[in-house]
Amino acid sequence: MEAENEMRREKYVADISSIREAEGRIKSFIHKTPVLSSESLNAASGRQLFFKCECFQKSGNHAAALSLAAKLRGIPAYIVIPNGAPKCKVESVMRYGGQVIWSEATMQSRESVASKVLQETGAVLVHAHNDGRIISGQGTISLEFLEQAPQIDTLIAPISAGRIITLPETNTVADGLQAFLGDFTWPIVRDFVDDIITVEDNEIIEAMKLCYEILKVVVEPSGAIGLAAVLSDSFKNNPALKNCSNIGIILSGGNVDLGKLWDSYRK
Amino acid sequence: MEAENEMRREKYVADISSIREAEGRIKSFIHKTPVLSSESLNAASGRQLFFKCECFQKSGNHAAALSLAAKLRGIPAYIVIPNGAPKCKVESVMRYGGQVIWSEATMQSRESVASKVLQETGAVLVHAHNDGRIISGQGTISLEFLEQAPQIDTLIAPISAGRIITLPETNTVADGLQAFLGDFTWPIVRDFVDDIITVEDNEIIEAMKLCYEILKVVVEPSGAIGLAAVLSDSFKNNPALKNCSNIGIILSGGNVDLGKLWDSYRK
Repeated sequence: MEAENEMRREKYVADISSIREAEGRIKSFIHKTPVLSSESLNAASGRQLFFKCECFQKSGNHAAALSLAAKLRGIPAYIVIPNGAPKCKVESVMRYGGQVIWSEATMQSRESVASKVLQETGAVLVHAHNDGRIISGQGTISLEFLEQAPQIDTLIAPISAGRIITLPETNTVADGLQAFLGDFTWPIVRDFVDDIITVEDNEIIEAMKLCYEILKVVVEPSGAIGLAAVLSDSFKNNPALKNCSNIGIILSGGNVDLGKLWDSYRK
Repeated sequence: MEAENEMRREKYVADISSIREAEGRIKSFIHKTPVLSSESLNAASGRQLFFKCECFQKSGNHAAALSLAAKLRGIPAYIVIPNGAPKCKVESVMRYGGQVIWSEATMQSRESVASKVLQETGAVLVHAHNDGRIISGQGTISLEFLEQAPQIDTLIAPISAGRIITLPETNTVADGLQAFLGDFTWPIVRDFVDDIITVEDNEIIEAMKLCYEILKVVVEPSGAIGLAAVLSDSFKNNPALKNCSNIGIILSGGNVDLGKLWDSYRK
């Protein structure tokens, strides 16, 4: 019995009690983000859709969130950012007082630069997703979502790949999903995710456009991927998903460089 | 006494009781829009700002709202739209089933085309703002806003001009404010608005950019004007506005043609 419990605990680094604990820790520091809906998008998808606007959260990504948390604690945050990262992500780190340290865009360079920073500063590494505390914190979104819209029978969230595969390089408009499933995240995904739907870049951009034009919400490509999924033919025509009537979609990031839009307005 | 009441009633076409009545009529047909806030924008303005996201409302403008209301009632809506109106406004009218009738961009053409439609169809004119029922309906935004954020001591809303002046043509990025104060709206503005702040087009675009990049909310230029006002030097340096600490800003429209942005993403 003791051994079995030990096994269970080792299997997943996060569960409902660690998520509830995380909620208690972070609640007073974060926004309770609203849930939006749209008759037009309900009609387009043939379902009732509920959009959790997590893109309105205080910090739009892990790097900015760590910078903010460190600032609230009065300690430094060193943020390793690969060359070519969206300018708005870098700006939000700096706005929250994080110290930006550049690396090459490869995973190898990111890891070696991070190791060097750890050695030189004595800092602790907080991985963007492969960490039980981070997973628990992210899990609080669903707790709050289900409390706001209890009729939800299906939840859709962005994910970068269905298996642990390491590609030498990735090329997608959804830069927020250029990540890898870790050894802590993978068992959770494998055991609790019911289905993985893949969408093409043009479907992501079309969904992003609908978020802007119908919902009036600024999301980054990765954030619009849940809407892209429910509007895809493979979702609509999948008999196994026929009973998904009330679908909760997490709009997860609003890090978009809008320079070109402003140029067009200034003309 | 009778005469005095009569005078009062004639003076304003809307008051708190007509607004409460309007709220009761429309409540079940509309979204309760969320109130957002941002530490970054609080810091930039030196005040506590509360943003009422009315741009998430079901219909983004009067024409779309009338089309939707007519659709719910099962009656036709004829919408006179001037040439050059943003494509997204026309699309939202059509999405809600309104029948678009084009006019020239001048006020004279809009009025003569509208008169012709009234004669031919027997329709009733519902003016976009110079109508007690419309004013009362718009007033419900503030009722809801103050209930959601009772600490607000100052409200800011967009307006097109400070006096009744008829310009032969207007040229501003804020197309939603290319309107005129009417004989019903003017007495209300004159007697209840404490101050009118004017902002330049470049300040409006800068505020619109902040709405997108910081709040992650899509607003049209006219909708961002309240934020432009609180960030302007004339607001910050006005001693009469020094005690405006908790400011409610209505983000009022999200009708933006985003074609160029999508082109830049598709490249």
